[in-house]
Amino acid sequence: MKITDVQTLTFRYRSTLGRDEEGHTHPAPEHDAVQVMTRITTDEEVDGYCFGGSEEMLPAARAALVGRDPLDREQIWQRLRRDQRSHRAALSDRNIGALDMALWDFAGRLTGLPVCKLLGGFRDKVPAYASTMCGDDIPGGLDSPEAYAKFALACQKRGYPALKLHTWMSPIGPNLRRDIAACRAVREAVGPDMRLMLDPHHDYTREEALELSRALEELDFYWMEEPMNEHNVASYVWLTGQLEKLMIVGPETAEGKHYTRAEWIMRGAAHASRYDVWHAGITPMVKAIGLCDALGVRLEVHAAGTGNAGNLQVLGAMGIPGEYYERGLLHPLWDYEASTPWLTEIIDPMDDQGYIHISQKPGLGTDINWDFIRDNTLKPWG
Amino acid sequence: MKITDVQTLTFRYRSTLGRDEEGHTHPAPEHDAVQVMTRITTDEEVDGYCFGGSEEMLPAARAALVGRDPLDREQIWQRLRRDQRSHRAALSDRNIGALDMALWDFAGRLTGLPVCKLLGGFRDKVPAYASTMCGDDIPGGLDSPEAYAKFALACQKRGYPALKLHTWMSPIGPNLRRDIAACRAVREAVGPDMRLMLDPHHDYTREEALELSRALEELDFYWMEEPMNEHNVASYVWLTGQLEKLMIVGPETAEGKHYTRAEWIMRGAAHASRYDVWHAGITPMVKAIGLCDALGVRLEVHAAGTGNAGNLQVLGAMGIPGEYYERGLLHPLWDYEASTPWLTEIIDPMDDQGYIHISQKPGLGTDINWDFIRDNTLKPWG
Repeated sequence: MKITDVQTLTFRYRSTLGRDEEGHTHPAPEHDAVQVMTRITTDEEVDGYCFGGSEEMLPAARAALVGRDPLDREQIWQRLRRDQRSHRAALSDRNIGALDMALWDFAGRLTGLPVCKLLGGFRDKVPAYASTMCGDDIPGGLDSPEAYAKFALACQKRGYPALKLHTWMSPIGPNLRRDIAACRAVREAVGPDMRLMLDPHHDYTREEALELSRALEELDFYWMEEPMNEHNVASYVWLTGQLEKLMIVGPETAEGKHYTRAEWIMRGAAHASRYDVWHAGITPMVKAIGLCDALGVRLEVHAAGTGNAGNLQVLGAMGIPGEYYERGLLHPLWDYEASTPWLTEIIDPMDDQGYIHISQKPGLGTDINWDFIRDNTLKPWG
Repeated sequence: MKITDVQTLTFRYRSTLGRDEEGHTHPAPEHDAVQVMTRITTDEEVDGYCFGGSEEMLPAARAALVGRDPLDREQIWQRLRRDQRSHRAALSDRNIGALDMALWDFAGRLTGLPVCKLLGGFRDKVPAYASTMCGDDIPGGLDSPEAYAKFALACQKRGYPALKLHTWMSPIGPNLRRDIAACRAVREAVGPDMRLMLDPHHDYTREEALELSRALEELDFYWMEEPMNEHNVASYVWLTGQLEKLMIVGPETAEGKHYTRAEWIMRGAAHASRYDVWHAGITPMVKAIGLCDALGVRLEVHAAGTGNAGNLQVLGAMGIPGEYYERGLLHPLWDYEASTPWLTEIIDPMDDQGYIHISQKPGLGTDINWDFIRDNTLKPWG
């Protein structure tokens, strides 16, 4: 069994999301947007697909993959990891993630099994939390503590058992007082039983992060993510060591795959770890879970956009640790469930108890709308 | 897809191995011996098999497995682990290992793939080291340092790139001087290029273990295993901290699955970790490998008898860490390759470069000799 090619296809879709100067998403006027798909072709009748990847990765990806057994994921992954040391062939973790997921998708399509069952299934459904977009200044959006409170109530009504606020990032934030006010408004609105989490501005000082943590402890928040620059690991050790109730969850954006998660755990830099499939794929994510399971440390999975198909498959195979699926990002003026027109069915349907039912379709479980993609192709497979 | 039953079958075979008072094996006059097989039946046309398990485990195994999806290995494994807290249903790690391996075998037979490819393949062959039986007082056996030297030469000639001595255990050992003399005799016989390792008497004092370590460093040995009681973790921290060249590899027999491996690594109790499939199966072994990979710690796989089919599949999927397959146990007066008459082909054929070629047959890759088993059944499936 051999890989014969790695290809990408680019298609367009109408988007109502825009990005601010830090890359955070907000509702925006409808406009054309593009989505890339990666395909790994083999000498079997079956291919592997992943939404994501890039045309620029193809020369390096082909050099590493073509001619190898598509089931030799560990061999391919180690080759791609080592290639990251080479200026010639360096692929980003995101691109490695797309390739690794396409290989897992292939294995599932070849065997007729979803990836969660290839890994060894644990659960068919996982509780979700509503994860808001970052704060904005859009009327009717997330422009005030009261707006967050109103939206949290709507999420609670929809069935979400938990909610995470992303508050105001640059250029609107940072604003510590306003972050705390939004958290307080949400707690007061939803009452004591809804789990609440916060992902604030990522560049607070130690002192600001501690002040924020104390306020969240008073408000009975469950965890906080990335209040400081994650490259200041010592700051996270300092903060984590002082908290009694609130969990610090991380790292999220720090480079270094599962290796960095190990360092954070060894240093006591967070109470719980964090991963998603864009950190170089399902293959290292499974190792991060093994690390956390062995040490009794929780790992909470980060929302990963088009990667959530992979995240959900991994969540289906995680015995411990890891409680929630992060659903979103959500916004009062934006229809999350209509945001992936290239799928026939959304990847994360949620019931009214707040559970996501994990796709049991082969591979990553995505139900690709080939008609939509054909009608909107900008650059065909190549 | 549902599990319909868990069964065992017992058959007899002619053995030329006996066990001493500590359970170590030595050549013995031919006699009847028994082997148990575990079978997990499903409502598919496919079953899963593992050599190992016990009739006594069946009530607890059935309570935990029957009715579940045979691909829900993580769910089943977590249930079995929790059941170990219950006096009613406690299964040994060995029995959980047999059940978990039978489930992996099922997944492989269902999909037509070897377990190493389900996990994500890394290599098709792995270097072996010759692992001797423990010392004895059998003329022509392993009854003197000179006997070890002679046998090591034979192993070198056979193609083994490395060799591990098991020296004299109770009641013949412990004998520190003689252990060192055997190691010296072997090094002098095979020359400087063969990798050498030692697994001595398991109950030396700290001071004896250090003296032994210093001697092994002089003899350019590669690693040593379990020179002291593995429950004295502080002794291993003490010993490991003083060595510069010799690796301490462990724990091997310590209870606690991958969780204990994590503790040893966190405490610096060994340079490299150790696992085999009888520590509750492939499922936790994969987590131990994730732990070690994340921390950059080597994991050397322990020989596991009938479990070696599982060990080899895992070795085929291990990118790092872990260098060798432990082949044996070997003895000058005993034909290792004829020791599994219940298989049509041995599980670990070795070429003359010392590589084991990992079976690419479905599941655990064993080629079961059903004629032999039928002709020698003592207790049929039930």
